[in-house]
Parts: sequence; structure tokens; C-alpha cells
Amino acid sequence: MDTMQAVAKLTPAPGMTLIEASIPTLGPRDVLIKVKATTICGTDVHIYKWDRWSQSRIKPPLIVGHEFAGEIIAVGELVRPDEPQVGDYVSAESHIVCGVCQQCKTGKAHVCQNTRIIGVDTDGCYAEYVAIPVENAWKNPPNMPLPVASLQENFGNAVHTVSSVDVRGKTVLLTGCGPAGLMAIPVIRAFGAELIVATDVSSYRLNLARTLGADVTVNVAEEDMYNIALKASRGKGFDVLLEMSGAPAALNGGLRLLKAGAEAAMLGLTPAPLSDFDINNLLIMRGITLHGIAGRRLWETWYQMRALLASGAVDLRPVITHEFPLSRWQEAMEVMASGQSGKIALYPGA
Amino acid sequence: MDTMQAVAKLTPAPGMTLIEASIPTLGPRDVLIKVKATTICGTDVHIYKWDRWSQSRIKPPLIVGHEFAGEIIAVGELVRPDEPQVGDYVSAESHIVCGVCQQCKTGKAHVCQNTRIIGVDTDGCYAEYVAIPVENAWKNPPNMPLPVASLQENFGNAVHTVSSVDVRGKTVLLTGCGPAGLMAIPVIRAFGAELIVATDVSSYRLNLARTLGADVTVNVAEEDMYNIALKASRGKGFDVLLEMSGAPAALNGGLRLLKAGAEAAMLGLTPAPLSDFDINNLLIMRGITLHGIAGRRLWETWYQMRALLASGAVDLRPVITHEFPLSRWQEAMEVMASGQSGKIALYPGA
Amino acid sequence: MDTMQAVAKLTPAPGMTLIEASIPTLGPRDVLIKVKATTICGTDVHIYKWDRWSQSRIKPPLIVGHEFAGEIIAVGELVRPDEPQVGDYVSAESHIVCGVCQQCKTGKAHVCQNTRIIGVDTDGCYAEYVAIPVENAWKNPPNMPLPVASLQENFGNAVHTVSSVDVRGKTVLLTGCGPAGLMAIPVIRAFGAELIVATDVSSYRLNLARTLGADVTVNVAEEDMYNIALKASRGKGFDVLLEMSGAPAALNGGLRLLKAGAEAAMLGLTPAPLSDFDINNLLIMRGITLHGIAGRRLWETWYQMRALLASGAVDLRPVITHEFPLSRWQEAMEVMASGQSGKIALYPGA
Amino acid sequence: MDTMQAVAKLTPAPGMTLIEASIPTLGPRDVLIKVKATTICGTDVHIYKWDRWSQSRIKPPLIVGHEFAGEIIAVGELVRPDEPQVGDYVSAESHIVCGVCQQCKTGKAHVCQNTRIIGVDTDGCYAEYVAIPVENAWKNPPNMPLPVASLQENFGNAVHTVSSVDVRGKTVLLTGCGPAGLMAIPVIRAFGAELIVATDVSSYRLNLARTLGADVTVNVAEEDMYNIALKASRGKGFDVLLEMSGAPAALNGGLRLLKAGAEAAMLGLTPAPLSDFDINNLLIMRGITLHGIAGRRLWETWYQMRALLASGAVDLRPVITHEFPLSRWQEAMEVMASGQSGKIALYPGA
Repeated sequence: MDTMQAVAKLTPAPGMTLIEASIPTLGPRDVLIKVKATTICGTDVHIYKWDRWSQSRIKPPLIVGHEFAGEIIAVGELVRPDEPQVGDYVSAESHIVCGVCQQCKTGKAHVCQNTRIIGVDTDGCYAEYVAIPVENAWKNPPNMPLPVASLQENFGNAVHTVSSVDVRGKTVLLTGCGPAGLMAIPVIRAFGAELIVATDVSSYRLNLARTLGADVTVNVAEEDMYNIALKASRGKGFDVLLEMSGAPAALNGGLRLLKAGAEAAMLGLTPAPLSDFDINNLLIMRGITLHGIAGRRLWETWYQMRALLASGAVDLRPVITHEFPLSRWQEAMEVMASGQSGKIALYPGA
Repeated sequence: MDTMQAVAKLTPAPGMTLIEASIPTLGPRDVLIKVKATTICGTDVHIYKWDRWSQSRIKPPLIVGHEFAGEIIAVGELVRPDEPQVGDYVSAESHIVCGVCQQCKTGKAHVCQNTRIIGVDTDGCYAEYVAIPVENAWKNPPNMPLPVASLQENFGNAVHTVSSVDVRGKTVLLTGCGPAGLMAIPVIRAFGAELIVATDVSSYRLNLARTLGADVTVNVAEEDMYNIALKASRGKGFDVLLEMSGAPAALNGGLRLLKAGAEAAMLGLTPAPLSDFDINNLLIMRGITLHGIAGRRLWETWYQMRALLASGAVDLRPVITHEFPLSRWQEAMEVMASGQSGKIALYPGA
Repeated sequence: MDTMQAVAKLTPAPGMTLIEASIPTLGPRDVLIKVKATTICGTDVHIYKWDRWSQSRIKPPLIVGHEFAGEIIAVGELVRPDEPQVGDYVSAESHIVCGVCQQCKTGKAHVCQNTRIIGVDTDGCYAEYVAIPVENAWKNPPNMPLPVASLQENFGNAVHTVSSVDVRGKTVLLTGCGPAGLMAIPVIRAFGAELIVATDVSSYRLNLARTLGADVTVNVAEEDMYNIALKASRGKGFDVLLEMSGAPAALNGGLRLLKAGAEAAMLGLTPAPLSDFDINNLLIMRGITLHGIAGRRLWETWYQMRALLASGAVDLRPVITHEFPLSRWQEAMEVMASGQSGKIALYPGA
Repeated sequence: MDTMQAVAKLTPAPGMTLIEASIPTLGPRDVLIKVKATTICGTDVHIYKWDRWSQSRIKPPLIVGHEFAGEIIAVGELVRPDEPQVGDYVSAESHIVCGVCQQCKTGKAHVCQNTRIIGVDTDGCYAEYVAIPVENAWKNPPNMPLPVASLQENFGNAVHTVSSVDVRGKTVLLTGCGPAGLMAIPVIRAFGAELIVATDVSSYRLNLARTLGADVTVNVAEEDMYNIALKASRGKGFDVLLEMSGAPAALNGGLRLLKAGAEAAMLGLTPAPLSDFDINNLLIMRGITLHGIAGRRLWETWYQMRALLASGAVDLRPVITHEFPLSRWQEAMEVMASGQSGKIALYPGA
């Protein structure tokens, strides 16, 4: 078998195409993985729709997809015995980092200056096979469900965001219940928050938020976030804001609800630069600290995920709301785009 | 003697007035201080000019001023023997905090929910005598020069800002060389920065910046900050930004010059909300942390100041560029407003 | 009613006595509390037995006891309206701190240089009434069970110990399941540990440890800690050691089980100086950090306790294994000394 | 030229031998370096004397030495263009780490579980040429003096130790003025300490300590450390202890001089387990934190060193007290063993 099924962006225009592609060749430090499950990321939807960011970044033709789990079926000649081997059940860190810039050499590889991303800058995992550097492979425990193993890349954004602040015994406001926001909820719970108030514009997602452990939810399309959230905190405001929506109103309103001296972490990208950001009252005069969050810590975040999932402290199965064979990728992409889903898994070869 | 000379805001309008005022009465937990030196803060200039903030906050009549040094000449009946006593040479923390809010009870009294400020919310120190709670008095070593002792309140803003980040062996960009910015420079130096690049619009202040230890200065009214600063960092950008100007261009340009994974502290208040703040590229995608800075840590910052001044690691005398008797307060205020000064000291009774 | 029932150490010798004592008088900044529940601390047992430490510290006559909950029935004349008032349901921080030393002024009041302890240096709470400084009173929510409210002082040791390290997603070894160790277990769980292995010499306490959430327990009187704990960690060792027994073998064995680069916190006091402490291999060469833990953070720890108990993340009711009227104090003390108990509550006036 | 001059341990016994050795062969990821300077470490003296540790670790024949600087003259076939290249002026991190253990993958490679050390576990740099993995090579600025470039490996121990605590504005007690202790002094100074008190048993080294910036020195062979150090701190004790002697008396006495709530870092290895370590009073009851220090942070410490040396904040030239051609290695070793030296440089081919 020399070819495989794959979903690719073939031209610089909206859409993707199911193709027969060559099975990837293997560099001396690469591993070849038979993809058993892949999950859809919001980024994939952006590429599908061909938004402004995609137009500036993606160079077709490209096999897309960067969240997956599978089995190593071949390794390059320079892969060492103490590294992942044929037969291992692995997931992947999607950031291929250079290893030599200052960030890589000082524990900040998640903001490597030369990052390339699987499925964005190199051929990805919406396919039966994918080749990645051995350094990017992460061994899973054998009993981890396939779609959970796959979505770890995205779960890592949630774990990194929550871990960047101290939620132990704290009141936490989470704005934005897309997949990363939803997956943050059981982590906030597991790390000992006193109160979790979650907001979104989708009732579907707020239902999931409650299932996953939110104490109070606010549909900001219909309800007043400020008053409901303030009341939930018994009038005291919040110790921590996790902004995972990218909505300027969520950022502004969330910061306003923080106690003086509190901290915020921001993962959500805004659709445009902020046009009316009252940094004096929201950040400076009240001594707030704001953390911008990118990617996942290599590899602290992966160790944390392994622990949270292995101990049962976090159960991500409710987050996976839909499953399709890879051949029905287009239907899956439309469901993902609708906002009426959690994570969606695709199964190549099925 | 029952009255004293003082400078007060008497009416809700621009200007101040030199008056004969009653010597303050003393509560049971207060100390009465004979003011030996007072220094002018930018806030005092705002009150003098009666800007929007002053109009919303100041309730005339009010004796203004909050930076000073002097000698305790009387203590209230409930001041304890292990607290400051008659004869002590003291300065003052200007924030009168409640002691019972969550912030006060958890080491964050600098953002107390019920802060009142000397010279803003209560009668201040542009006077021969001032009464303050004993908790706000800070004992100075006997050999500390009077104007240095006085300006510690403002120096504390600088020390708090620099201490909130890690400058040890780091490249530091300081935007804004007003008094707090200037006083930050020897602290950045003392704490081991590799490189200090300082910016301002005033050549006068940039000269002072070099005297105080800046390696490179940029007059952003005339020169291109981005290229000069980048070159000074050998093309690598900065590990730390200290934003002490309040100019949106400085904040945006400074954040742009940071390395991925770097950190910033922001003390300068902007004249208006930010109108075009590219938070995605400036903070989130590069994993930057931004600290809003208010006041001084009670009392960590004061201990740090004592150490920096006592060891000689920091010499603030070059910062004091003008000295006047209190009676010439108006001339001093105009010099301060001109931007052609460092700190200005006033001497009551002189 | 001018007198009250109290349990006091009357002479410098083993034992205590039930006495009729005067109701405490009230200083201007004190509150008088009707004690509704008090709980026994190991320190009280030491005083009862009159061990070496007690002989050097306690000055009879003294009413003992420092863990309690009750209702304020009178306040001194200088207690402010924003402080606890008559009718409030309160517990107490047992450390009376000076407020003026460097530790107190820099957020480290738990190691105040001039600490006096209720029931050790001043009359305590094994009584119908107790007077304490208003600063030491902590308001409880009305629905908190009396014995839980009382034992917070001791719970605070556990919360402080666990909070001093990062247990989020970590493997944790807890040596020592006395009351503080037992109460640490649900906190370790609440803060997201992957694995909790707990050790002790008492099967009674190890049963409680499992009830409270330990994954694996080791009776070190009968079993081999090293091999059982190592196996529980899948051969990897531990990220965190919490030493709460004071046994040198637990400290040495626990440190040996840590991963390189790990951290430990130590609350348990050893019976004598360590006689064979291999600091090179246990700490230095493997880059271990060891935190000595004293008291509770004032007041961060109390806020954390309130949150943990209010959210239901921690349920301390299983820790309270015995309850007696205060008049049966001696029986209670003997049970406590036997090791066959968790916390024991005493009820004055019952 | 196929052979080179080298100093090697040939047999499991005291002493070393000057030999003609083969020039090292080059693995695919190695670089071959022409050694221009090497410096003697205390470890080399231990190997020379064949102490207990050496007997357990060293497998002769072995070329010794791990501190050096030189020029890359060949690179293996798999060295990438963005890695060090022929002609680069480099020093070396002596720890060859595995890159795959949990420590390596989470920013703690300095305590890698599989560390091999150049000159201890593999042939070292007391030679005209040495081959090391390219990952271990660190590029120096061209103007760095050769012996300074060489001793960075040891300087890194000092920088790592000082950086592990916060000395900004703090009073610091440094026990032990061997080379690492001496090199710590200008770093403590550069990072803004208020006071540095340094102790040793050698007047020679204490003289160097004062040259390098110690405020007060104590010869503990002749003077009373406790009283002199306490007085130097104006009776207040120390915020930070850096234990770099390995002497139990220094550790015990140093911890005793710390303020409550302070922190200590410990690099010095003790000659034997501690026999009388009062952990209750020295660490636990006063809330002290103790950091065990191993190696250098990869690569944070190297970036810090580059910055400290490039900015001129630290000048290490006074530390280099002796220089010899490599052929006079034995004379150099004896001087080093005498305690009457700072760092000693050897020049191969000279």
C-alpha cells in the first residue's frame, strides 16, 4: 500500500478535499504513525473557511489536522532506543520547535521563535498516516480512549491556561465555553477552586459546562454577566479570570469582576485589536496581573494531563459529542462550525 | 503657636493657596509630625491644575501633599511603646489602609479596598505639621538626607515596579523618565540588569537618565525607538519592559520589543482608554505576562528602599534638581509642570 | 455569673485540674467569647504530660487550650464597627502577633518574632469563656458545624503545609497521619494530586486516612515503606513529600523516595536533633527544596480553609472521632494520648 | 598529527599521568574542540587524590578535566547549521544529559536521571583536544578572556546558587570562600544585596573575598562567626544563607543566623552525614526554606553568566590567581590542593 486517504487544502480558497496521497516518507529522526483518531480544532475550521489568518499562513497543498492519536509503525534510523518505538501508542505535541533559540533553551519552548505547526506548516493528521519528529511523540497509557488521547493537544491549552494561575481555594470566572474552555472546567475543579462561574453565548455549551463541573453558568447573549457573576461570588468578585472566548466584552467585563490584586490568564484571540480598553481601571490601579497564554508547556503540561486523566480527577469523555469516519469530514466540519458541539472525533480508515 | 503655614486647595478650581491653618489635632492612634521637607508628586500638579481626576476625587478645602519627612513631636494616647515615638525621624506611607479587607489581610494592602490617601482624601503635608496614623510612619536612619527621606513614597513606586519582575541579568526597556521612571533606573542597575534602554520625550530627563545609569537613551520625540532599542539589544529584543510613561505608543512599542515569554510591568496611567491595542500579537500569542502596578508593597517595598539607600547601591541625590522654601510653592509647581526637573523639594518654615 | 468552669495547669507537674475561674476581663481591643466547642491539640497533651518543652515554656497557673469556636458576647471599647461584633460566630487564630516586627510587616506574621500563643502564653479556651484580641477572631459561616469551626486552627497547619508546595497533578507522599496529617489528605486531594500515599504506625489512623482519600497506605511498623510507596508510584518516586510525623525515619525515607528536583514540606517536629542526616544525597545533589512549616499564614490560610470547607471540597467531619463534655476532659485527654482517635471535641457547659 | 598531550588517571590509585593520547574520534552529533584553556575544579583534586567518591565513580583509564574553552575544529555529520560550527569560540556544559527523562523534559535537566559528566564519566579536557556532544557547546563572545571562558562551568554553580534565592536588597551570609563561593560574591553584589558577610578558614581566600566585594569577612578558624556576623547585620540576622563550604558548623551556624521566614541555598557537600542537625529550631519552627543546589540550570544559568560578564557587572579576573602550561599540571594541582589559590588555569600546547 503506497497511498492513503487524507483531507487536504489543495487551493488557496475555502473548502478542503478528500484525496489519495502518498504515505509520508520518514526522516532519520522521524516516526511514522498510523492515525487511529483525529479531533477537530477551531484552527481547522478557520483553514476550512479560509479566513484572513489562514490566507496569510497556509501554503497549499497541505494535509491538515494536528490533533491525533495512533500507533508508531516505523522509526527513522537515528531514533534512539530510549525514545518512542514501533508499537507505541502515541499522541503528538503539534509544535515542532527548533531547540536552539533562547526560548527553547530556557524552558519556554512553547513560544519558540521558530515554531512550525503540524497540519499548518507541515502535512498533518487528517490522514491514515502521519510522520512527525520523534521529539514530538508522547506515549499514552494503553487504556486511554482514542478520542481522549487525540484531543490532548487541545486539552493542553486548557491545562496550561489553568496552571498559569493559582485557583486553589479561589473563585474563578471562566469566559468562553468553546472546547478549550469546556475542558478547563474539570481542571479548575480538580485543582481546588471554591467557585466556577462560566459564561458563553451558547446554551448547548453551557449545558456541557454544567455537566463538566461549573457551579453557575451565564448566557451572556441573554443574561447580565456582571450581576449574576457578582452575586454568585457573594458580592466579592473573583480571584481569577480565565478568558477563553476572545470576545472583548468578556475580557472587559471579566477584568471588571476581579478583586484588586487578582490575576487573569487569556487564551482567546480577539477578532481585532481592542478599541476601548480601560487599562488604568482594569489592570494598573488595581494591581492585576494578566498572563498571555500560548500553546502548551513542553512538557510540563503533558505530564499534568497524564496525571489528571490517569487519576480520574478529570474525565473528558463528555466533551466528545460527535464521532465520524474521516470520509465524512465535511459533515463533521459543519457541525463544529455550528457551535452545537463539543469536540468531534474523526476515524481514518473507518 | 496654634497655627501653621500650609498650601491648600480651597475651592473646586485651578490653583492652590498659602494659608494659615490650625495645627492638626491628634487621634488616639495618630502621630503629629513637624514637616522638615516635602517633595512634589505629579499628583499634586494634577490637583493644582484641577484635571478631571482631581475634580472627581478632591473635596476642598484640603491641605495637599503626601511625600514628606520630619520629626514626631507628639503621639496619641494609644500609641504603643514598640511603635514610632516622639523624636523619631520618619517618612510616611501615603496610603491609609483599613486593615480588615481581604487584601489587607493577605499581604496586598497596597490595593486595600478602602484606601484613603494623605493629601488627597485627608489633610496633607504641604504644611509645617501633619498628623497621620502611627501605622503609616516609617523610621528613617538618622543620616538620610531630608529630601531623599521625603521622596521615598514616590521612590517606592519605582522599587515596587522593578521588584515585580526579574531583571537579574536581563535586558530592560524603560519607557518614561518622569521622576518614578528616573528613580527606577538605579534600582534596575542595582538588581543586576545587563542592559537598560530608557526612553522619554524630554532631553532634560534623558540626560538625568544617563547620569542615573541608563546605558542607552532614546528621545522618542526625535528618534525611532524600535530600531535604536532593537540594535542596543543586539537584535534580540528585551526580557523586561517597565512602562512608566502612560503613553500608549510607549506601551505598544515597548511590548512589541519584548522577547516571546517575557514580562512587563506598567505603572504609567494612560490619558484615556487604549483605542487600538493588539492584545493578540502583543501579549497572548507570545506568552507575555503584564503586571499592573499600584502603590507600594506594605512594607516589603519600604524595607527594600532602606536597604538600597543604606548600602549605597542607589543614590537618589541626582534626582533632586530643585529646592525651595514652602512659601515659594507656586514657582516650584510651575517648574514641576514644565518637565524640566527631577524631583523638587519644599521646606516648610524656611 | 462571675465565675466559669475551666481546665487549667495549676502547678509545674503532670496533669491538669478542673477549676472555677474568674470570667476573663476585657482589654479595649479584646473580644469576650462564650466557648461552644474546643478541640484537643497534641500540644495540649504535651502540656498535660508536662514534657520537656512544656517545662521550658508554660508558666502555671494557666487555663489551657487554643482551638475553639464560640460566640462573641462582649467587645472592648476600641473595637471598630468593621471588626467582629457581639453575636458573631467566630474561631480564633491562636498566634497573638506583634504587628510591628519585620516578619509581621512583610506578610510573614506566622513567624512573628514576638508571638504569644493562646493557651500556652495566655489563658486559653478550655473554659466557658475566653478573651482574645479582636485581631485574632475569625468569623465563620453560620452553618459550619461547631467542632469543625473549632479545629480550624489545627486544620490551618495542614492547609499551610499542603499550600507551601505544588501538588497539582503530582504524586504525593504523606508521612504521618496524626490529626494534621489526616486533615492534609482531603486538601491534597482537593488541590489535584494524582496519587496520595500515606504512612503511619497506627492502623486506626491509616483507616481514617483511606476514608479521607489516601490512595495507598503503609503501616511502617509492619510494612516496608520504600518498596510499597515506590511501587505505588509505578517505580518513579514522588514529586512531593509532606513530612508530618516528626519521625527521622520518615524524613529520611521520604526524601529518598523523592524524584530529583522535587520539593518537601516539613511540619512534624523531631523528638531530638537528627543524628545521621545524609544531606548530600537526600537534598543537595538531587536539587531538592525543603520548606520548614510553622503555624498558618495570617490570613491567607484562613481564607483557603473557608473556601475548602464552604465548597464541600473538604469534609472534616470524619476526622472528629470523639466528643465529650468539658467536664470529662481527662478521659478525652487519655483517648487523645492513646493514638486511637482523630480529633476530639470538648463542649463547655455541657 | 594523530596524538595529543593529555593528563589522565591511568590506574585506580592516587595521582595522574601526562600521556600521549589519540585525538578523540567524532560521533555524528559531536564537535571536536581544540582546547585553549582549562581550569582546575575541586573535583579534579579529589580524583587526583583518589578519595572515596572517586574510587566509587571513576573508571580508569580516563582523561580528566571538565572546565575549558577552545575552538571548534570539526563537527559531526548530523550537526545542524543553526548549531555551533567550526571556528566558534566555545565553552562547555559538563553535564551530558539524556533529554528524555522527566527532569530533562520539564526544565530540570541539571538533575537529569542519566547525567554523564565530561572528565568524570567520559574523556575530558586536560588535553589538546576534546570531543563533546554539540548540545553541550556554548558560544562565547570573542572578547571573553580564555581563563574566564573556561571557568564558566564552575561560575555557573555560583550563579545557580545565588539565583535560587532572592538577594535583592537583602542581607546575605556566605559560608565558604572556595572558588565557587568567591565567584558568588560579585553575583550577590550585582543582584543588589544590602550586605555580604563571607566566612572561610583561609585568610588568603578572605582577602580575595574582600577584593571581590564582601563587606565583612570572618575567619572562622580564629573569630566568632555568630557575634561578628550578627553585629554586621545590626543585630537583625540574615535574609539569606548561601552555604558553599560543606562544613557542618557553617551550615548550623549559618541557619542559626537567619531571620525567621528566611531562605538558604546549599551547594557545599558535607564530608559525612550530619550528626547533630537541629532541624526543629533551625528550619521548621522558624519557617525556613532550604534549597539543595546541583549543577547549573540548562541553559538559564549560561544566559545569566553571559549577561553578568558582558555588562561588566561581574569581573572574574581577580579569581584567576595562577596560570600554568598543561605540562606543569602537577604543580598546579598541588597549589590548588593547598587552599592558597583562587582558580588555576592550564594551557595545553603551551
